[in-house]
Amino acid sequence: MVFILKPDVAKEKIDTFIMGWEQKGFSTILSVGTEHTAVCLIGNTAEIDVDHVVETSDIVSYGKRITEQYKAVNRTVHEDSTVIRVGDARIGEGFFTVISGPCSVESEEQICKIARSVKNSGAKILRGGAFKPRTSPYAFQGKQAEGLAMLRLAKKETGLPIVSEIMNQTQLDLFEDVDILQIGARNMQNFDLLKAVGGLKKPVLLKRGLANTIEELLMSAEYIVAAGNEQVILCERGIRSFETMTRNTLDLSAVVLLKQKSHLPVIADPSHASGIRSLVPPLAKAILAVGADGIMVETHNNPAKALCDGAQSLDLEQFHTLMEDLRKRAAMEDKQL
Amino acid sequence: MVFILKPDVAKEKIDTFIMGWEQKGFSTILSVGTEHTAVCLIGNTAEIDVDHVVETSDIVSYGKRITEQYKAVNRTVHEDSTVIRVGDARIGEGFFTVISGPCSVESEEQICKIARSVKNSGAKILRGGAFKPRTSPYAFQGKQAEGLAMLRLAKKETGLPIVSEIMNQTQLDLFEDVDILQIGARNMQNFDLLKAVGGLKKPVLLKRGLANTIEELLMSAEYIVAAGNEQVILCERGIRSFETMTRNTLDLSAVVLLKQKSHLPVIADPSHASGIRSLVPPLAKAILAVGADGIMVETHNNPAKALCDGAQSLDLEQFHTLMEDLRKRAAMEDKQL
Amino acid sequence: MVFILKPDVAKEKIDTFIMGWEQKGFSTILSVGTEHTAVCLIGNTAEIDVDHVVETSDIVSYGKRITEQYKAVNRTVHEDSTVIRVGDARIGEGFFTVISGPCSVESEEQICKIARSVKNSGAKILRGGAFKPRTSPYAFQGKQAEGLAMLRLAKKETGLPIVSEIMNQTQLDLFEDVDILQIGARNMQNFDLLKAVGGLKKPVLLKRGLANTIEELLMSAEYIVAAGNEQVILCERGIRSFETMTRNTLDLSAVVLLKQKSHLPVIADPSHASGIRSLVPPLAKAILAVGADGIMVETHNNPAKALCDGAQSLDLEQFHTLMEDLRKRAAMEDKQL
Amino acid sequence: MVFILKPDVAKEKIDTFIMGWEQKGFSTILSVGTEHTAVCLIGNTAEIDVDHVVETSDIVSYGKRITEQYKAVNRTVHEDSTVIRVGDARIGEGFFTVISGPCSVESEEQICKIARSVKNSGAKILRGGAFKPRTSPYAFQGKQAEGLAMLRLAKKETGLPIVSEIMNQTQLDLFEDVDILQIGARNMQNFDLLKAVGGLKKPVLLKRGLANTIEELLMSAEYIVAAGNEQVILCERGIRSFETMTRNTLDLSAVVLLKQKSHLPVIADPSHASGIRSLVPPLAKAILAVGADGIMVETHNNPAKALCDGAQSLDLEQFHTLMEDLRKRAAMEDKQL
Repeated sequence: MVFILKPDVAKEKIDTFIMGWEQKGFSTILSVGTEHTAVCLIGNTAEIDVDHVVETSDIVSYGKRITEQYKAVNRTVHEDSTVIRVGDARIGEGFFTVISGPCSVESEEQICKIARSVKNSGAKILRGGAFKPRTSPYAFQGKQAEGLAMLRLAKKETGLPIVSEIMNQTQLDLFEDVDILQIGARNMQNFDLLKAVGGLKKPVLLKRGLANTIEELLMSAEYIVAAGNEQVILCERGIRSFETMTRNTLDLSAVVLLKQKSHLPVIADPSHASGIRSLVPPLAKAILAVGADGIMVETHNNPAKALCDGAQSLDLEQFHTLMEDLRKRAAMEDKQL
Repeated sequence: MVFILKPDVAKEKIDTFIMGWEQKGFSTILSVGTEHTAVCLIGNTAEIDVDHVVETSDIVSYGKRITEQYKAVNRTVHEDSTVIRVGDARIGEGFFTVISGPCSVESEEQICKIARSVKNSGAKILRGGAFKPRTSPYAFQGKQAEGLAMLRLAKKETGLPIVSEIMNQTQLDLFEDVDILQIGARNMQNFDLLKAVGGLKKPVLLKRGLANTIEELLMSAEYIVAAGNEQVILCERGIRSFETMTRNTLDLSAVVLLKQKSHLPVIADPSHASGIRSLVPPLAKAILAVGADGIMVETHNNPAKALCDGAQSLDLEQFHTLMEDLRKRAAMEDKQL
Repeated sequence: MVFILKPDVAKEKIDTFIMGWEQKGFSTILSVGTEHTAVCLIGNTAEIDVDHVVETSDIVSYGKRITEQYKAVNRTVHEDSTVIRVGDARIGEGFFTVISGPCSVESEEQICKIARSVKNSGAKILRGGAFKPRTSPYAFQGKQAEGLAMLRLAKKETGLPIVSEIMNQTQLDLFEDVDILQIGARNMQNFDLLKAVGGLKKPVLLKRGLANTIEELLMSAEYIVAAGNEQVILCERGIRSFETMTRNTLDLSAVVLLKQKSHLPVIADPSHASGIRSLVPPLAKAILAVGADGIMVETHNNPAKALCDGAQSLDLEQFHTLMEDLRKRAAMEDKQL
Repeated sequence: MVFILKPDVAKEKIDTFIMGWEQKGFSTILSVGTEHTAVCLIGNTAEIDVDHVVETSDIVSYGKRITEQYKAVNRTVHEDSTVIRVGDARIGEGFFTVISGPCSVESEEQICKIARSVKNSGAKILRGGAFKPRTSPYAFQGKQAEGLAMLRLAKKETGLPIVSEIMNQTQLDLFEDVDILQIGARNMQNFDLLKAVGGLKKPVLLKRGLANTIEELLMSAEYIVAAGNEQVILCERGIRSFETMTRNTLDLSAVVLLKQKSHLPVIADPSHASGIRSLVPPLAKAILAVGADGIMVETHNNPAKALCDGAQSLDLEQFHTLMEDLRKRAAMEDKQL
């Protein structure tokens, strides 16, 4: 159940209102938007008479039941779209933010070269894997802490904020200088990790799991927001289907539905979704056209020699060409690239 | 194995070349493009020495093995994209052709009203179901022959070519005046029907089955082309996945791959793919952006009262608005709407 | 809505009762079981007062609403399990009927040899494909009419009833001597074919489609039964999932649910489900243990040389061994093999 | 590449052999079976001449390449089936071990009552969730540490070894008294957790992920074994498909393939696979018939009041009846229940 408050209610009155509910055993979520402030109740609200609350409270404008299980990420509770600010970048309504970089950080030279190039092409955030989840224990597992150090260097050199995948909550200290924590597809329902990043005050990029529904993705985001961290970016990256010609099946309907049902920004990853370089540019254009707030694209200075996922990485020139194209298209969508 | 012939070879020489292979037990496909003419061999070509053929024949420019099972629809055999002409409409490279109309033809008045309106908005082909494949025997099965008559009337009145779904080969006579025969998703591997429409000289719109791979779709198209009918339009319309929030999962990577691997035109159907009206416009834009040659969109003069699939149909005004948007976007893609 | 009639009601009274409903615009299904007779109404029954009908009719014992869309195949309407009789074979409760034979009939010698052998091992019905649905137009399409003649010969020689796949309704005459018509997975929603076999008085073996739900399978069976043919055998044969190590994913929960929800016999096909010979015996045992009424197993006198699906066929000795094992297990289940 | 050693080779010779390879940059896995001892090389073995090694070494009986990516869990490397011993229970060839208990530990009284009852019915291991991975942050998350204490009490009272799900590696200390660590489906590719439990000397029950292939499951097991812990039990628990009538789709072919490809014990979980109580007994019988080494079944003293997964739990009497049935069947399979 959500109560939309009247404009300009004093903070003390809101606190009193909230405390009243918590004393009755409900959890509450306070959502402060530019348009309105909302208080959402979690718990068994079946016996609450909404109209009675509205009539008897002097701070409530109106109330309604929320049938979805996700509350804090629900657009009904928080009507205006969340825009996340990280360094000079913005992610959310009005922007089409491009995150780019290699699957895996390999060396200082590699990451700095790629960082300079993608920045020059218009990327606003640098990605780079340091801890790599790999199906095989014998496959390259990433440069780990050393990789994070290289990534920090590239950030220092270019000013680009950085995003990297965290694999478990014991790594939180290591990731202190990482601007956006990525939760990978395989960890989308690693609930303890979700709770842990929910305790931070930095953006989290949450990727959809390979076999997870749109609703489950929203529920995982709810874990983070309910724990206190509202800065969640949702990322569609392809789901597993029977089709074998592509690595995964990009689900663009999910992007539209996530934007309709939640106020959180939504991006997509055409590289992991397809696994095929030549599919990345057309899919990137489709992702922009469908209304996403950005993309995450793998690039490499020498894809043929990449330690990981070379077949799906654009080289720096291909990325530059793609960005030129996306720039025109973003303008047509009234979005800032 | 495909042999690309030298330019301007006399027809008799080609016939002799082909006959030579057929006498050795191979089937052949002759593919005449604007750039080159190709002869493709079907059968066990393992023991053919390609270089020897090229050296000893005076009409062969070069030859190569085709590893894919599809030959006649393979872009390797037929490099230039096929453009299908039906009435004033063109489907293929350089065009973004919009097919629109109701899920089901309901009455003369309904279909004519919709036809006039979608034509006015820019649709080039009218769709309308007369024979409806329905999961339940108790559901509305379409107006059948009467429905086809209504569709013809709408065609006469507006000049729009018409497309309608044929459910089995005994209906071929009934569909004589229908410009494009649609093979529905459930019939994509109804091989006898494929062979039957392969014997015609009119375009076939072949929809991807709910659980069929990209390769299987190409093989089904191969049935039609190998039987003699080169006018096949491929249609991605969503596949079945575990996601339940949408009716199906639109697979836009398939559109790109089909265009890469085959010379046939490829369209997509955002209405059946999503099953949700509000998803149709964003998906339509994504379909255009990803490089498809057109869309098939369900429209209805009164979706709330539609006998079939109302929830996914645009009303005529929504369709008009979508078309205005697509017109600008098609221009940016250098495509004619 | 279904009305269970009192015992021993005169036929005229039932006819009058049925006619009354049909005059009000309902379709009806009369279901005569050993335990009770039921009349099922199809149509908008929302406004019917069940209690009022029961009170005012002198032939109705009780009535209830059926929420499922399938009525004629619903166990609620027809409580006792249907047992189908074909030649000396029985398919249904109390039996575990083994159908066996080659994927494809190849020659008189082949089919007769296999028929004699599988009969000797305990198979009760002979399968053999004459018209083969193949993904590729260049693959062997079956011996067709000639194959059916060979199958008839094997039937004559062994006395085994035969089952073979019919691919479209124009073939009905050709299949006159075939005891059980098989509708293949790709045709499960070929509704015109379902209606056509619904007009016959012979058993139909209906295979589940690769991407079809349990409910859709029941609805396809409903097409046949509603058209007048009650002799439908349902067959689980594996569905398509993301797993690539097996040809399909056998869904044994479906067998249990189909038996719970419908009165029709349910068998399963471990050969197509797995596509791997060594998986067939363990899966066959599991199919028996889970409560199915039979299996359909591919056998071949020389699997390595089979024209079709050799990799999943048992040789005749392997089949014999399997049958010895199944015989003991069937006894434990109190089922006749 | 695997080298099978001659019988009765001295330990020092083996050590020397292994060290030789490690100095050349290979990792090695030493696998000591009852039949033979094997040394498996991990790394780029392309240039090793197997025959040359066999000829020149005096301790190698024969060698062969392993094409699969999993080595330590591969049956080629370790021919005889692994049997895991925990308390009085055995899991592996020759046994059909039943693990039972509630989805969630709720109270001392509840878990002890269930433990006594399932032990009396023949269960050999007690399951009970203390930390519960739940889709919603607002759902019951388990009794946590307190739940583990209750579980220990039930163990003490009945002597049954206990299994419970560990959600992340920071919990290892908490789980010290838990006999078998369960890695849940959502954590199957939580590689850091796999590495952590790989460092222990206690059995790990590894559940297949909802969208993970058989090969991926084997690779995750490889993580644990390669890290030094050979006691891994694989568990098929249903995969996600398009079917919605069941919670998941039980994949029994996977059980057979896992047993063929790996030496590890394989069990299955009919409760989570189906999500429906009435399906659990027939699926349990099928799991036994297909060749699994055991089942994990949810039971509850009062399913209607269970805090979690009541709809799929058997009550204690239903479980008892199932066990009586399984006992007869296990005898027929020459397995000890």
